[in-house]
Amino acid sequence: MLNVIVTDPPRADLAEVDKLATYGVATVHEAIGRKGYLGPEIRPNQQGARVAGTALTVLCWPGDNLMIHAAVEQAKPGDIIVVTTASPNSDGGFGELLATSLVSHGVRGLIMGAGLRDTQELRDMGFPAWTAHVSAQGTVKETTGSVNVPVSLGGQLIRPGDAIVADDDGVCVVPRLEVQQAVAASQARLAKEDANRKQLADGALGVDMYDLRPKLAKVDYISYAEYVRRAGEGI
Amino acid sequence: MLNVIVTDPPRADLAEVDKLATYGVATVHEAIGRKGYLGPEIRPNQQGARVAGTALTVLCWPGDNLMIHAAVEQAKPGDIIVVTTASPNSDGGFGELLATSLVSHGVRGLIMGAGLRDTQELRDMGFPAWTAHVSAQGTVKETTGSVNVPVSLGGQLIRPGDAIVADDDGVCVVPRLEVQQAVAASQARLAKEDANRKQLADGALGVDMYDLRPKLAKVDYISYAEYVRRAGEGI
Amino acid sequence: MLNVIVTDPPRADLAEVDKLATYGVATVHEAIGRKGYLGPEIRPNQQGARVAGTALTVLCWPGDNLMIHAAVEQAKPGDIIVVTTASPNSDGGFGELLATSLVSHGVRGLIMGAGLRDTQELRDMGFPAWTAHVSAQGTVKETTGSVNVPVSLGGQLIRPGDAIVADDDGVCVVPRLEVQQAVAASQARLAKEDANRKQLADGALGVDMYDLRPKLAKVDYISYAEYVRRAGEGI
Amino acid sequence: MLNVIVTDPPRADLAEVDKLATYGVATVHEAIGRKGYLGPEIRPNQQGARVAGTALTVLCWPGDNLMIHAAVEQAKPGDIIVVTTASPNSDGGFGELLATSLVSHGVRGLIMGAGLRDTQELRDMGFPAWTAHVSAQGTVKETTGSVNVPVSLGGQLIRPGDAIVADDDGVCVVPRLEVQQAVAASQARLAKEDANRKQLADGALGVDMYDLRPKLAKVDYISYAEYVRRAGEGI
Amino acid sequence: MLNVIVTDPPRADLAEVDKLATYGVATVHEAIGRKGYLGPEIRPNQQGARVAGTALTVLCWPGDNLMIHAAVEQAKPGDIIVVTTASPNSDGGFGELLATSLVSHGVRGLIMGAGLRDTQELRDMGFPAWTAHVSAQGTVKETTGSVNVPVSLGGQLIRPGDAIVADDDGVCVVPRLEVQQAVAASQARLAKEDANRKQLADGALGVDMYDLRPKLAKVDYISYAEYVRRAGEGI
Amino acid sequence: MLNVIVTDPPRADLAEVDKLATYGVATVHEAIGRKGYLGPEIRPNQQGARVAGTALTVLCWPGDNLMIHAAVEQAKPGDIIVVTTASPNSDGGFGELLATSLVSHGVRGLIMGAGLRDTQELRDMGFPAWTAHVSAQGTVKETTGSVNVPVSLGGQLIRPGDAIVADDDGVCVVPRLEVQQAVAASQARLAKEDANRKQLADGALGVDMYDLRPKLAKVDYISYAEYVRRAGEGI
Repeated sequence: MLNVIVTDPPRADLAEVDKLATYGVATVHEAIGRKGYLGPEIRPNQQGARVAGTALTVLCWPGDNLMIHAAVEQAKPGDIIVVTTASPNSDGGFGELLATSLVSHGVRGLIMGAGLRDTQELRDMGFPAWTAHVSAQGTVKETTGSVNVPVSLGGQLIRPGDAIVADDDGVCVVPRLEVQQAVAASQARLAKEDANRKQLADGALGVDMYDLRPKLAKVDYISYAEYVRRAGEGI
Repeated sequence: MLNVIVTDPPRADLAEVDKLATYGVATVHEAIGRKGYLGPEIRPNQQGARVAGTALTVLCWPGDNLMIHAAVEQAKPGDIIVVTTASPNSDGGFGELLATSLVSHGVRGLIMGAGLRDTQELRDMGFPAWTAHVSAQGTVKETTGSVNVPVSLGGQLIRPGDAIVADDDGVCVVPRLEVQQAVAASQARLAKEDANRKQLADGALGVDMYDLRPKLAKVDYISYAEYVRRAGEGI
Repeated sequence: MLNVIVTDPPRADLAEVDKLATYGVATVHEAIGRKGYLGPEIRPNQQGARVAGTALTVLCWPGDNLMIHAAVEQAKPGDIIVVTTASPNSDGGFGELLATSLVSHGVRGLIMGAGLRDTQELRDMGFPAWTAHVSAQGTVKETTGSVNVPVSLGGQLIRPGDAIVADDDGVCVVPRLEVQQAVAASQARLAKEDANRKQLADGALGVDMYDLRPKLAKVDYISYAEYVRRAGEGI
Repeated sequence: MLNVIVTDPPRADLAEVDKLATYGVATVHEAIGRKGYLGPEIRPNQQGARVAGTALTVLCWPGDNLMIHAAVEQAKPGDIIVVTTASPNSDGGFGELLATSLVSHGVRGLIMGAGLRDTQELRDMGFPAWTAHVSAQGTVKETTGSVNVPVSLGGQLIRPGDAIVADDDGVCVVPRLEVQQAVAASQARLAKEDANRKQLADGALGVDMYDLRPKLAKVDYISYAEYVRRAGEGI
Repeated sequence: MLNVIVTDPPRADLAEVDKLATYGVATVHEAIGRKGYLGPEIRPNQQGARVAGTALTVLCWPGDNLMIHAAVEQAKPGDIIVVTTASPNSDGGFGELLATSLVSHGVRGLIMGAGLRDTQELRDMGFPAWTAHVSAQGTVKETTGSVNVPVSLGGQLIRPGDAIVADDDGVCVVPRLEVQQAVAASQARLAKEDANRKQLADGALGVDMYDLRPKLAKVDYISYAEYVRRAGEGI
Repeated sequence: MLNVIVTDPPRADLAEVDKLATYGVATVHEAIGRKGYLGPEIRPNQQGARVAGTALTVLCWPGDNLMIHAAVEQAKPGDIIVVTTASPNSDGGFGELLATSLVSHGVRGLIMGAGLRDTQELRDMGFPAWTAHVSAQGTVKETTGSVNVPVSLGGQLIRPGDAIVADDDGVCVVPRLEVQQAVAASQARLAKEDANRKQLADGALGVDMYDLRPKLAKVDYISYAEYVRRAGEGI
């Protein structure tokens, strides 16, 4: 199929999506089975933001942001725009003017597979962004791509309408049909972590708490003197 | 030609260069025809600084900062020192002592193709720096290079006396003879952007404002149902 | 030798180690002969922290943090935990729960060759960390490794009990038996730098202060006009 | 959804898939609308091989090849096995023994997102492989993943049963339902290229043949003397 | 200055350029003062080729090869085409059809800052190419750039008409006005190396031949036992 | 300890080391407990070579090969020279003249953490080399380092006299005192692999042969229809 703009894809229920923002990326990612994390290359442009929203996906040509402009028209309140390029590209296809435009249509933030610019202005206006590159390199508006088609970013598939959660640890995608489950699992995980935290703060050992000693059975506990003897290494 | 120190190259007019700092990197880069950006690898050591100055160029050997010391003697008030190495190198050839020395000669900041150290001290003393690497790895002072010759950094040619603009988005070089033009073009661009920003904040669409609909003519606008039908993909 | 946990390796004297924190990474690294720096890939998770401690080394399998849990039991007050993986890995094997556990056993910070998560929470609780990657990607607890054996990170050998110094410039390791020497040499270097700083602030030139002019003897000092003539380049 | 092994996904028609191998990656990628290329990081382990087959997809844990063993049982003649990991990993999870096993089940080759080993042995036995890394680093068989689920590799989504084409230029995926179209479009493209090649070999210009002069209208054709005058650069 | 096509820049004398090919990249680079090497990222597409020619420079937009087509018209026999992009890009903007076209105009080879495709076909037709990436990813022909202007690639400035030498070690640029000097210096270096090679083959030591012992004066020669004693490391 | 040249470190028994070459890197690495592999960044300069020898270690300054010359004098027949730099560096500090010199002293090959040049000449003369970079960039001979001290390369510690094995899969180090064990374990592994290969070639499944089915117990085997139903994804 050639380039298309899908005009009104189903979106995850925003009330549920909003709950995901209360848990954060690490918790949600664990809760859904260690899936959906967009990897360490997509970094926050600010410190301390935590947002969730529905994916408005964009596929651009490298060095070209035509389709971001086309995507604005498809935005709905609660969306987070997810911009990818047809091949690896670091150019600064997104800046403060586009953010201004998106905010006026209710978009909550940006996930950028290429480059971001006006980084200070975006922090000043409180528009949260996660990006693979910071770059002032300008782009053209010549070559078409697609809006609201499935895209691949950071080794994850993102479909339009999927839920996006992002904070200082990066970005996680939750499939549209799994959001409710993800909320429940995250809540359960949080409760468990609270209990564990208390014990660990009191000096309990994870090897006991998580019952890890059997897994360590084949590891020898040896003294330093024994280590030096075995290795002949004299550490 | 072997290694040389060029003692008094012509510099861009500092009064004009100062104006460039008011526009910022993204604006200047766009205004001069999407040129001169040093790429996403040269990152700021601080947040919120925006400076402009004339390039004092240095070409060092990897792992060696001898020529930075030689360059101090060639510095003039208003300069920004631009340090490159003969091959890729991350060593920390620049720190707080060199900054102290350069400040006493009127230098406004540093663009570093290799590594920077004493990063906290540099922030504390307000000396702005943009660098490819942060590294405490020390350097020697053994092998010669050049001062005030054209250098290549981040895919751009930088001649001594060219204008340098740097902020949170990175670094841009403006050829010495094009600075006045760059100021005028940046001012014009800023005015245009102000007008656009107002419209976009009111909900205007970029596809209309920039007359992009003809370019989107070959893109199909389809419903989600139609997309599923065509792709057989069931997103 | 297969996987082992060494139970009580000798550690550098903590009173001496504490002194290292007063000098910082760049100074200590220079003082011990430009050695021990873990390179520019290990970056701080916070700004402005400077710590020193004794290395509690851990060797994990990629995507697996079993041995970090095993290491907690071996921790002593004053330790800094140093986590490496058997092959390059960016997964988030360390977060706020493990930090809570380690703090309760007196551990002062983390050096992480893989990925870190809960980055904001770690900043909030004041647990300093240096890491090669930030990643929310979760890990399993299945495959064994070693604790308190020599590990290699950032091109440096780190033995259990060695001294670790870390600040905004990165991380430096000082061999256990060289800590006292390192303190003395750092102190001497600091004194020398203070004297140099004063002179440089007054406009003295490094080429004179460090007696570098002989090394520049083979470099020609030429005018801009001469440069243009020689190169035929017309800069 | 947690880890699953999908036992018998529909596969692209092998007779059509075989035709794709006659065109090569660059042609097929262009023919289907410049899509599906797995990027420059997935490189061939041999020179001169060109194969096509149906995707047998595998999702492994980093440093773990358990699921490749599980995938062998799901293989069908004509398959190409596509191995990804849950996070970036370079370990050598695939070597000559696994290739021997897969060949006995009719598998035609390997696309590897992690590391390959026994590279010379694989060339000797004529088992073609494309891989992101070459590495002798061994893996364990401890942690589960999935077989025959959609995976993301090199920025592309690959579904089980999709067609894979690979040659010295890399790897391209063609969605299962678009294979027939891809064959037709590739054939048409090949014919057009043959005609173009003849003209270009005779000295015809692409700017005429592809009617590009209008696109160059805003570019000035100037003499060298004029360039020097305009730029004041004296090249 | 905006985009231009410079129609007839002066070129280095081809008779002299041809001589450079007899020396190879490492020799020429050393002979001209360890300058001009385009770095380790530009790799040969074939093994054993060694060519020299005059630079036909091209500046393209990322993901766009329009200007390569425009450059063909400016080619002269003896040229080597040098293609760069305005920002980092790996797309396969050059393949066998363009090579066919360039060969018909006397072009001897390609230096590619972006991606190359049809790699096997180019080897088969004997068209030598050096490239930063191999990629089948197709490009468009939409956005203008420049032909025969100075470009920056691999940290080096390349002017139109400069000499290019390339072999298995990579690519070196020699400024147009320094070619004759480069030939003489390369010839002298070759003679010296021949003499050195004979001595070294007979067992002579470089530390004597190059008079390096004074430089090693501050290095202690110690026995293994002494090393173990000093380090307390017991290697 | 400052820079030293250790004159006669103990070396692994060459007769045992020679046996390691018959097994290859992947086998030896597995046999000694999945240790010692120098990672995927150290690649062969030739195809099909497999060598073993004793490590002659060298620590150079970046951009400087002085210590390689110093190391030649310390070479013994059967050595493989292992060159590292004090910080990451890609310069071509090793070429055909140094190889000629080392061959005359009985050295069998090179492991290079920096750059290699004269790559074709080295292939022609049959001197096997593994290297992190190919680069014609020349080096100076100014700054001292060490010979025959422990070095860190590719995440592994290499002591002088350790055994080195290298082939198309990369490089593995075996501690001097573990060589005999490594030979025995490699031989045992080879025998086991021969038996496994036969069964796998006959169609046996690894999941049975290695008894992996219990580990797959928590993975659901589901039909394609069931997968589509569960995921609502319609693959």
